[in-house]
Amino acid sequence: MVKKVVVAIDSYKGCATSAELNAAVKQGIAQYNPQISVTCQAIADGGEGSMQAIYEALGGEFIQVATVDLLNRPITANYLLSQDIAVIEVAEVVGIDKITPSMDTIQRASTFGLAALLLDALKRKVREIIICLGGSGTSDGGMGLLAGLGVKGADLMAFSQLDFSEMADFSQVQLTILSDVTNPYAGRSGFSMIFGPQKGGNPTYLSQQAQQAQKIVDFLKQTKGIDLQQIPGTGAAGGLGGALVILGGQITPGFQKISELTQLATHIAGADLVITGEGKMDAQTAFGKVPFGVAQIAKQYQVPTIALCGALGEDLGQMSEVLLASFSIHSQLVPLAQAMDKDYTLTQITRQAQMVCRVFFR
Amino acid sequence: MVKKVVVAIDSYKGCATSAELNAAVKQGIAQYNPQISVTCQAIADGGEGSMQAIYEALGGEFIQVATVDLLNRPITANYLLSQDIAVIEVAEVVGIDKITPSMDTIQRASTFGLAALLLDALKRKVREIIICLGGSGTSDGGMGLLAGLGVKGADLMAFSQLDFSEMADFSQVQLTILSDVTNPYAGRSGFSMIFGPQKGGNPTYLSQQAQQAQKIVDFLKQTKGIDLQQIPGTGAAGGLGGALVILGGQITPGFQKISELTQLATHIAGADLVITGEGKMDAQTAFGKVPFGVAQIAKQYQVPTIALCGALGEDLGQMSEVLLASFSIHSQLVPLAQAMDKDYTLTQITRQAQMVCRVFFR
Repeated sequence: MVKKVVVAIDSYKGCATSAELNAAVKQGIAQYNPQISVTCQAIADGGEGSMQAIYEALGGEFIQVATVDLLNRPITANYLLSQDIAVIEVAEVVGIDKITPSMDTIQRASTFGLAALLLDALKRKVREIIICLGGSGTSDGGMGLLAGLGVKGADLMAFSQLDFSEMADFSQVQLTILSDVTNPYAGRSGFSMIFGPQKGGNPTYLSQQAQQAQKIVDFLKQTKGIDLQQIPGTGAAGGLGGALVILGGQITPGFQKISELTQLATHIAGADLVITGEGKMDAQTAFGKVPFGVAQIAKQYQVPTIALCGALGEDLGQMSEVLLASFSIHSQLVPLAQAMDKDYTLTQITRQAQMVCRVFFR
Repeated sequence: MVKKVVVAIDSYKGCATSAELNAAVKQGIAQYNPQISVTCQAIADGGEGSMQAIYEALGGEFIQVATVDLLNRPITANYLLSQDIAVIEVAEVVGIDKITPSMDTIQRASTFGLAALLLDALKRKVREIIICLGGSGTSDGGMGLLAGLGVKGADLMAFSQLDFSEMADFSQVQLTILSDVTNPYAGRSGFSMIFGPQKGGNPTYLSQQAQQAQKIVDFLKQTKGIDLQQIPGTGAAGGLGGALVILGGQITPGFQKISELTQLATHIAGADLVITGEGKMDAQTAFGKVPFGVAQIAKQYQVPTIALCGALGEDLGQMSEVLLASFSIHSQLVPLAQAMDKDYTLTQITRQAQMVCRVFFR
């Protein structure tokens, strides 16, 4: 009977995408035995590379929108339109990689420019807008976005109240917010205190932000009956998660949503082997990262999973319980610069996939 | 049925011995399943670590002999006495690691001190003396040894003739010379031209040596009917191979002899899996190195072989044809100094052995 392998590797950050790694593994399997049926599933956790992964799985077209970035500089940003679903990756507009974080940038950085993408998608009457958080350089509580959508008074540091009377209408669209972070909006675990430092804020400024965020929480509790502190993930992306909840969005773990969209479980059911992986696997992986999600689905269907990674921590924690085995892709020690080279990485993972299949399918 | 694994890994030079690596792999297999029967076979190719490997496999006692090293400094050297077999590792007495090679050392370095070990073994009426070449710092054509055994005129640079009339009698003992080098005694491929530079010789001196070596070849051809140029390996260990042939020794590939002594094939027959390896495996491995020998025996008995190595070259040449698969032991990129640390290496190979068994025996 034809053997079947499902390949679903997370991107190796800064090195190779999920689709590239999957294709390289497929090549390695074919070197072992071209008769094996291989299904490649681009996959992500809602962070960097999620839009691309959904595109690889579902197809669609990229829509270009003229807007401004987080520092109000004109840019053209892409979002994915796939049938009646729009997929927006916030880092396309407000990515931290566009700035050098400092006290100056954290005071100026705004999610305003994202509004143009949501409004464009709304205009096209999509059924669902999926917003991938992660990688943002903003810490504005999502107020910039609300302002861009017509909400008056949407200014974190000058907050007194919000007026939604002229806000764009999102009631007819499903807003799905992908986040791998569960922080609340305000307080000690909120966006400013936890993520503010990496965005350039000093302690004094960040505690002012946290106080302002608490005012917004209080206001929404009283006026709308929404308690952002009770909803995990509202503190994601500098509070953008909270702003999207105000619009009616639902925060969902990224992997779960993307694996549903791409019908990962359907592909895995009946497979003989699943190959997953990520750049560096360690005890954190079991906390909702892609390989854990993939391996958990495979375990439900009693399909063994092997992980191929750039690096493996000494302790994989719960991850070891859902894996048959884990291997580094490296066949020798090389300098980090070489290890981060895409072509080198793809060559290595091809080789290692072949080796693993030789042992697994012998 | 109880599964059976044979573990026979070559030493990782400068890092861990064959026996240590085998034991670490055995531990990894037990972590996977303590029910698996594991046979550890210390193994070597006749070079560094061979005496230790034979000791691990056959037992015996180490005999201490007072002698001199290659620069005539008093030392105590060990050889192995295992039942009626003596095993001498020449590097114990004339190892290049005892000196800093220079024109001074190459002119003074002598194999004279080895004679005491051979004479001690002879006195004990052993059936066989196994001499492991490799790692020598001498380039004296083995004349020092002959002088030490009572041969008159045994001086490479002052050679005119050899007088064997008072030489110790080796006619009742089997002399087995283990070498992984096939160079002849004199000429362009002889010991001086090929190995002389790494022993400190300059071109002028080395070509003088080669001329002297040719005189010895001519002399032996005429007087004894022995043609050292026709016997592969007489150029090993600075011509010591040739001197031992004059004594009646047989040059044998090291792996073949050691694997016979340790009955490797008997252990491999009927095993489910063989695990071998070496520090760095590459296209050279198929030219008589330990893992190739191990895998070839396993192939004869249709037992799959997996190699666990510190590093794998891109092209393993013929080696790939005799292996089921090959893996580096490293689960992440570490600095070379850490990779050469014995404890780290043993931890890594234990982990990798477990992983390989998880996939192999699933």
